Amino acid sequence: MKKDKHLKLHPWKIIEEGFHPTKVTSSESLFSIGNGYMGQRANFEESFSGETFRGSYIAGVYYPDRTRVGWWKIGYPDFFAKVLNSPNWIGIDIQINNQDFDLNRCLKIEKFKRVLNLKEGFYLRSFEAVLKDKTRVFIESKRFLSMARKDIGMIKYKIKPLNKKCLIKLNSFIDGDVSNQDSNWNEQFWKHEEKETKGNFAALKSETLKTFYKVCTFMHNQFFLNDKILKETPKIKIKKNKISHTFSYSVDSNKTLSIVKCGGYVSSVRYSSINFNKTYKLSKEALDLGFDFLLNEQKNQWEKIWENSDVTINGDIKAQQAIRYNIFQLNQTYTGEDEKLNIGPKGFTGEKYGGGTYWDTEAFCFPFYLATKGSLAARNLLRYRYNHLDKAIENAKKLGFSNGAALYPMVTMNGEECHNEWEITFEEIHRNGAIAYAIFYYENFTNDKSYIPKYGLEVLIGISRFWEQRVSFSKEKNMYVILGVTGPNEYENNVNNNWYTNYIAKWCLNYSIIQVQNVREKYKTDFQRIKKKTGLSEIEINRWKEIYENIYLPYDSKNEVFLQQDGFLDKELRSVDEIPINERPINQNWSWDKILRSPYIKQADLLQGFYFFEDDFTLEELKRNFEFYEPLCVHESSLSASLHSILASKLDKKDKAYQFFLNASRLDLDDYNKEVMEGLHITSMGGAWMAISKGFGGMKIKNKVFSFNPKLPSKWTSLSFKVNFDGSILTVKINKKETTFELTGDKSINLICSGKKINVQPKKNIK
Amino acid sequence: MKKDKHLKLHPWKIIEEGFHPTKVTSSESLFSIGNGYMGQRANFEESFSGETFRGSYIAGVYYPDRTRVGWWKIGYPDFFAKVLNSPNWIGIDIQINNQDFDLNRCLKIEKFKRVLNLKEGFYLRSFEAVLKDKTRVFIESKRFLSMARKDIGMIKYKIKPLNKKCLIKLNSFIDGDVSNQDSNWNEQFWKHEEKETKGNFAALKSETLKTFYKVCTFMHNQFFLNDKILKETPKIKIKKNKISHTFSYSVDSNKTLSIVKCGGYVSSVRYSSINFNKTYKLSKEALDLGFDFLLNEQKNQWEKIWENSDVTINGDIKAQQAIRYNIFQLNQTYTGEDEKLNIGPKGFTGEKYGGGTYWDTEAFCFPFYLATKGSLAARNLLRYRYNHLDKAIENAKKLGFSNGAALYPMVTMNGEECHNEWEITFEEIHRNGAIAYAIFYYENFTNDKSYIPKYGLEVLIGISRFWEQRVSFSKEKNMYVILGVTGPNEYENNVNNNWYTNYIAKWCLNYSIIQVQNVREKYKTDFQRIKKKTGLSEIEINRWKEIYENIYLPYDSKNEVFLQQDGFLDKELRSVDEIPINERPINQNWSWDKILRSPYIKQADLLQGFYFFEDDFTLEELKRNFEFYEPLCVHESSLSASLHSILASKLDKKDKAYQFFLNASRLDLDDYNKEVMEGLHITSMGGAWMAISKGFGGMKIKNKVFSFNPKLPSKWTSLSFKVNFDGSILTVKINKKETTFELTGDKSINLICSGKKINVQPKKNIK
Repeated sequence: MKKDKHLKLHPWKIIEEGFHPTKVTSSESLFSIGNGYMGQRANFEESFSGETFRGSYIAGVYYPDRTRVGWWKIGYPDFFAKVLNSPNWIGIDIQINNQDFDLNRCLKIEKFKRVLNLKEGFYLRSFEAVLKDKTRVFIESKRFLSMARKDIGMIKYKIKPLNKKCLIKLNSFIDGDVSNQDSNWNEQFWKHEEKETKGNFAALKSETLKTFYKVCTFMHNQFFLNDKILKETPKIKIKKNKISHTFSYSVDSNKTLSIVKCGGYVSSVRYSSINFNKTYKLSKEALDLGFDFLLNEQKNQWEKIWENSDVTINGDIKAQQAIRYNIFQLNQTYTGEDEKLNIGPKGFTGEKYGGGTYWDTEAFCFPFYLATKGSLAARNLLRYRYNHLDKAIENAKKLGFSNGAALYPMVTMNGEECHNEWEITFEEIHRNGAIAYAIFYYENFTNDKSYIPKYGLEVLIGISRFWEQRVSFSKEKNMYVILGVTGPNEYENNVNNNWYTNYIAKWCLNYSIIQVQNVREKYKTDFQRIKKKTGLSEIEINRWKEIYENIYLPYDSKNEVFLQQDGFLDKELRSVDEIPINERPINQNWSWDKILRSPYIKQADLLQGFYFFEDDFTLEELKRNFEFYEPLCVHESSLSASLHSILASKLDKKDKAYQFFLNASRLDLDDYNKEVMEGLHITSMGGAWMAISKGFGGMKIKNKVFSFNPKLPSKWTSLSFKVNFDGSILTVKINKKETTFELTGDKSINLICSGKKINVQPKKNIK
Repeated sequence: MKKDKHLKLHPWKIIEEGFHPTKVTSSESLFSIGNGYMGQRANFEESFSGETFRGSYIAGVYYPDRTRVGWWKIGYPDFFAKVLNSPNWIGIDIQINNQDFDLNRCLKIEKFKRVLNLKEGFYLRSFEAVLKDKTRVFIESKRFLSMARKDIGMIKYKIKPLNKKCLIKLNSFIDGDVSNQDSNWNEQFWKHEEKETKGNFAALKSETLKTFYKVCTFMHNQFFLNDKILKETPKIKIKKNKISHTFSYSVDSNKTLSIVKCGGYVSSVRYSSINFNKTYKLSKEALDLGFDFLLNEQKNQWEKIWENSDVTINGDIKAQQAIRYNIFQLNQTYTGEDEKLNIGPKGFTGEKYGGGTYWDTEAFCFPFYLATKGSLAARNLLRYRYNHLDKAIENAKKLGFSNGAALYPMVTMNGEECHNEWEITFEEIHRNGAIAYAIFYYENFTNDKSYIPKYGLEVLIGISRFWEQRVSFSKEKNMYVILGVTGPNEYENNVNNNWYTNYIAKWCLNYSIIQVQNVREKYKTDFQRIKKKTGLSEIEINRWKEIYENIYLPYDSKNEVFLQQDGFLDKELRSVDEIPINERPINQNWSWDKILRSPYIKQADLLQGFYFFEDDFTLEELKRNFEFYEPLCVHESSLSASLHSILASKLDKKDKAYQFFLNASRLDLDDYNKEVMEGLHITSMGGAWMAISKGFGGMKIKNKVFSFNPKLPSKWTSLSFKVNFDGSILTVKINKKETTFELTGDKSINLICSGKKINVQPKKNIK
């Protein structure tokens, strides 16, 4: 395993030491900060003439970019909605003795350091620089996006001349001249309207084109010499889309000039009216309370998050750092508070995938949010899909389905499909199954019995109607088949009878039948409402049953394994080891047809089914299928390693489980794919957490009973993680000898640990 | 069948009567003219504010347009080469009494007529128009692109005031402000350089960007009042990319003002140096000879073409008109003279498909050119691919093949692949087979024994090496398989063991082995040269044999038919009749996934193999397979009907054969697909000719012996067609009672007619 030497290991911090001009864009991703409502890459405040990828994003503020495609197919969406790069409010340009300060143009840069403080939720950068005229300065910038005040971020930026008195000019600005790197046609996404400046405050009102989101970007500056506030008013410069406040000071050697900058966005995603006054008040209040007060507030917020979600690993600092980094980034991306928002594959750290919602959320993130934030956060994620049900029905209709059949989009922002590759958009339909599975998972995990009758059943009906219409009957096989699909393994397109898709379709139909029965019996009013709304009939339920009982699942009796799809055994089944190393990853080296006719698997496909439906198969079956398919898996999806880690744990393949876990959790920190500059793999971080709890912890919920079957990697002396069960926090502590449990709250909990029933009583005095 | 009533039936003409503003773009396609080196849509000379699609194209002058694609795959070409819309030289704007003349803005248009004279090779338009001020004028324009002088076109444009004396202003121009409708990024394709004007002559020198083709567009005008030449010199206006010559005349009622305009292109495709002088001389000479002289020359040229290619059908004017139209358009597109040129699916009549070469050429056009123009023209088409062999090897290399394996592009201009849909570009590999098949067809048809040792064998080796590497071995089947392909039926993508692909691969390997053997024995010097150049080894020839003998061909023993591909019987095999009429054509109504999982076939796929390799199967086998697959075929490719017509003839399904023939030959004239405005289906016209000769004529060549097995449609009283056999023209005359043959040339020919051997002696006195 490669380790990027410039990053240091630490249990609570990500630390970079030394200035590496070629790694600036990578570090901009790694040190990204966010508060669930906005997020930004770790760009420098000051100008930088080296390679940089500037990005600042507001949750929910998107633009429908016109689709770009070579060959149009009926059913393609007209637009790909993209979260927008938003006006830059962090900008602070520096002049020292009339020289523009630019890290790319210094004589020397020493003691360069970046720290992402995971425990307290802030980002720090500091260094000493020697300028062309030999002036030596120390600069430190501390920055965070407030978890307590979602519209606000704070910067404390210090400059200290070290060897001579300097004339320092600070130019603090907001800049609306931003664009998305990944725009399809280089179109404008923003229209900038009014500007206001008042004392040390300035703001820019903008509107997104087409979607008409209103955003007021603001900044409010305070200046200090050492700790004494400076009262001078700024020189104001207003350009077309930019407002600057400039201050000049003569600063003695070893004195510190600081700027405290409060900035951020007030947007129509969160507020019904947007005005300058609101942003003025918000930022004035923040500055009056002071940077340190707000930073303390931030620490308290993060303390609460960690209380509910921390994972401790002793004996392996690499793993410890990684898992905390994963949990930290997930929390920065989505806080669980808002049913309008969701988790983009790159969060707010890049632009690839447009910031839209994928099935990643249900399959890889949902368990994390449910277990560390509780049922309300999880319910918000379910409601997100419920709110999109009408659009999913419309989407299916576009593709020729009828009668309320719902196909959830592959990628979406507002419920409409964004993706435009037929083999994915139209064929990677297993995603519908994951959305139903999340409902099941929630129902199984929580005591909330109201979700399904109120919301969930309608979604299940839409999804089952889709499967009902999507199967066809094979006379040849005398069974129902599903033709022309792409499974989770996107290295196979347009295959017939993908086992995973068929299996989850079968499961969906059965689960829907059970839930229809349940709601009919126990929630009569809801049932009447749903029946009226959906026109659900006995005939269709019978048809679901008929399909459920007669759906084809390809199986190979010779190897006693299920078959990933029809015809899989026609391939030359050579293991991944036989691929020349210089041809890996194959998706960067092989033409698409070569990948398609190879046996190689991008990420768990059939094994995804063994993970979701673990109780349907014996350990022996899992072993046979794992040993057949894992050697063919190239793990070229960020979602692959975590799932294989869980299954490897289950099979007592400890080394494999551990290695997969490291691959999953340190994917970005160690930049395995040499692409971290594009942004972090946020959704796959949920998988790393699952590898901890479900893999090493062996956590399972069956009929609402938790069980644990711990499998500690040999290197680890202990592991602990937390699970929120209906508001009580269960801490699972595993060491080489034993597993113990701590519980907060009022109720006790019955669980099974390594086969034994245990009753855990709440520890009253836990904080 | 729909018949567009505005088009009249005529054995030698396409006639439109009445002015139909909504049909202007369709007629612009239908009345297109060309001479193999340039071609143009039948645009009006004068300005037209209604809907129009202006296009004028020069063979071989293309631009590599940057690829546009939604999701890039390794192996995609960077460019899509496109034949360029070239400067417009036909423009003649008219002012009458200071009113701009515009057919879209007249009070009345009467006696509007277009005639495409197939026999003599010109296009005529005439009408009477009443202008807003009640002036009534008669206008007639006659236009042709000279078959004798490839750089030149001629227009004779007449205006006659009918009810009053008029001031007529003629503005004859050339205009470089042109662009391709189908450009990917709205980029500029042309750079215009110098302009020259001299007396009634003007020219514009231009260069294509990136490809640096130099083109000099010119015009040379003459003016007549009645038949008297007018000596006035024009008023010259030069704009950025446009040169105009303006003349004003006061014309009495019932006098005729005419302009004779000679224009065209001199391009670096045909000449090593391009200068104004050359264009001046060319056009001066033409004008000196006069319009009527050149028109007569044109008639003579077309007379020669018809002598070698005419098809007569008695008893069915619709069929007669259609087949002559098809032959006419094929000759306008490609004359057989130039191995650098080829036949784009839309010829010079539109921009779709970029004007590139497809497998259409070998499979649907090659027999026509071979039989009506002789072996030299056919050899030029073969040489075109031979010249691209290195590029085909390079193309295969990009996709991971090695050792000189060649994959000919799906679409090409200069040998490089242009297409960018993975399921086509990388998977529709059967095209390689058609290229080998054309070599076989040529060798079988002609007495030219030199082509294979000189050129053909290298192509066969490259193609066989491709198949050798493209197959894989299935342990399951214990046979070689071809995974992940798209057959001719593009409504199936990424299927395994497409029967047609596997069959033609098998055939290629065998044919290559035979030809290697043949050249080794009979052309030792050539063999040594080829062996040295290609590194051909015994081992690989043995491997070709091993694959040839063990390649899998899917078969269904229940229905006793071959299977289009693995898993075909899993589909719900409902016949095309069951598709609701409002959902046809399915490619305009169904989402792509729905098409893919349906059983519906776009064009002959398995049956393409029964056509190519007719001697490999019994009539009974053909019948079973035809009756199994034809009911599933939606014929949504222009290439479909002709092939089905041939097979239906063979099976004595006379009505079907006739209907398919009409569909094929009148596709554009009757605009079945409501898309003729985009351009004509030129390559499919070759299929219409094959339906005549191979279908109704039952023509076959086996071991160099022609046989005929005529099957006349019941409506037809007689049919005749011509076949050029090594320079002798054989005319086959079929009527209800008998089939007779006429032969020109010196040699007699032995043939088989309806099973009987016949010796045909040349008729010495045939003209």
